[in-house]
Amino acid sequence: MPSEVLDPQAILDATEDVLRRHGPDKATVLDVARVLGVSHGSIYRHFRSKTALREAVIRRWLQASQPEVEAVLHGHSVNGSERLRSWLTTLFRAKWRQVSEDPELFATLQVLSASDSRIGLEFVGQMLHQIEELVAAGVADGSLRPVEPGPTAQAILDASTRFVHPALAAGWSAPGIDEDLQRLLDLLLTALAPVKTSKENDD
Amino acid sequence: MPSEVLDPQAILDATEDVLRRHGPDKATVLDVARVLGVSHGSIYRHFRSKTALREAVIRRWLQASQPEVEAVLHGHSVNGSERLRSWLTTLFRAKWRQVSEDPELFATLQVLSASDSRIGLEFVGQMLHQIEELVAAGVADGSLRPVEPGPTAQAILDASTRFVHPALAAGWSAPGIDEDLQRLLDLLLTALAPVKTSKENDD
Repeated sequence: MPSEVLDPQAILDATEDVLRRHGPDKATVLDVARVLGVSHGSIYRHFRSKTALREAVIRRWLQASQPEVEAVLHGHSVNGSERLRSWLTTLFRAKWRQVSEDPELFATLQVLSASDSRIGLEFVGQMLHQIEELVAAGVADGSLRPVEPGPTAQAILDASTRFVHPALAAGWSAPGIDEDLQRLLDLLLTALAPVKTSKENDD
Repeated sequence: MPSEVLDPQAILDATEDVLRRHGPDKATVLDVARVLGVSHGSIYRHFRSKTALREAVIRRWLQASQPEVEAVLHGHSVNGSERLRSWLTTLFRAKWRQVSEDPELFATLQVLSASDSRIGLEFVGQMLHQIEELVAAGVADGSLRPVEPGPTAQAILDASTRFVHPALAAGWSAPGIDEDLQRLLDLLLTALAPVKTSKENDD
């Protein structure tokens, strides 16, 4: 394949395959070039470094679960509070599935996160933004008490660290983790529940 | 020093020094033996392996902050809810201090935690037990609503993962971490606050 028509998506596909086969410790840009039948210089014309290439692969791979997660984010059939629980549950189960179904790509994410890569920060930013949107929706529809969405989203994400931080993925197959998550969500949603007025209590 | 009178505490002291000087990747049992002027066989008569020796050092080092933490646990001048907040704050600040003041011993804890060592589990068990005691105290004195102390302690520890898991220590120097912790504790204690009766609301 001449480098002029080398498609960035084809490079990402090949890199994903190479990472799955060799793992992040052994996979090289030269392996990717060999799969595509091009020089490794051709790859570097599209991605300025091995890290940039891996970031692009992992960014695309992480986004693969986004449609499922965004369907919950924008599913307006339930109120904001229930959507928040459902969104967190869906997101975390998607991550748990990714680590068990695609351990080598997950290991690549871990390697990037442990280095100076911005990919962890990008993904945290995206999660925070979506949690903030859900909290604001819950406040607006009265299913959550009137809290500030930004700081509350940060506290919810902090509280969820065990279930979402890539460095802790080894613990995601622990028995009872789903019950542990639901118990934590019970606690968080109790804290955010609207305060009943004395009139409602009297009903 | 002849091995018959070799004091286990002296071995722990020497190992701690060697770990501080060389770090967990380079420190050896032979280094410890050299410091004490004994053969490494003499060390193995007291500790069956390098891991057992390091576990003993790290266990003692972790316990060094226990008096401060236990003073809060048993300080009955405030109610259970306030004691729970104070205990978690004291414990986490002690850990943050340990990682900045003693990075090589903290790195040893991280190496042990990432291997099959039980030391992480031991410490988690101890924290869970103490949180459970505080929740039970809060329920008993009416400063917390009537929850089951065991599962609630698990949820509180899960929610605190960002602030206490050794694998996440690199994030403990983040600006604003103390505010993030207090915001999380606000949320948890709101969830556990006693439910006001309509009569109280009418007051």
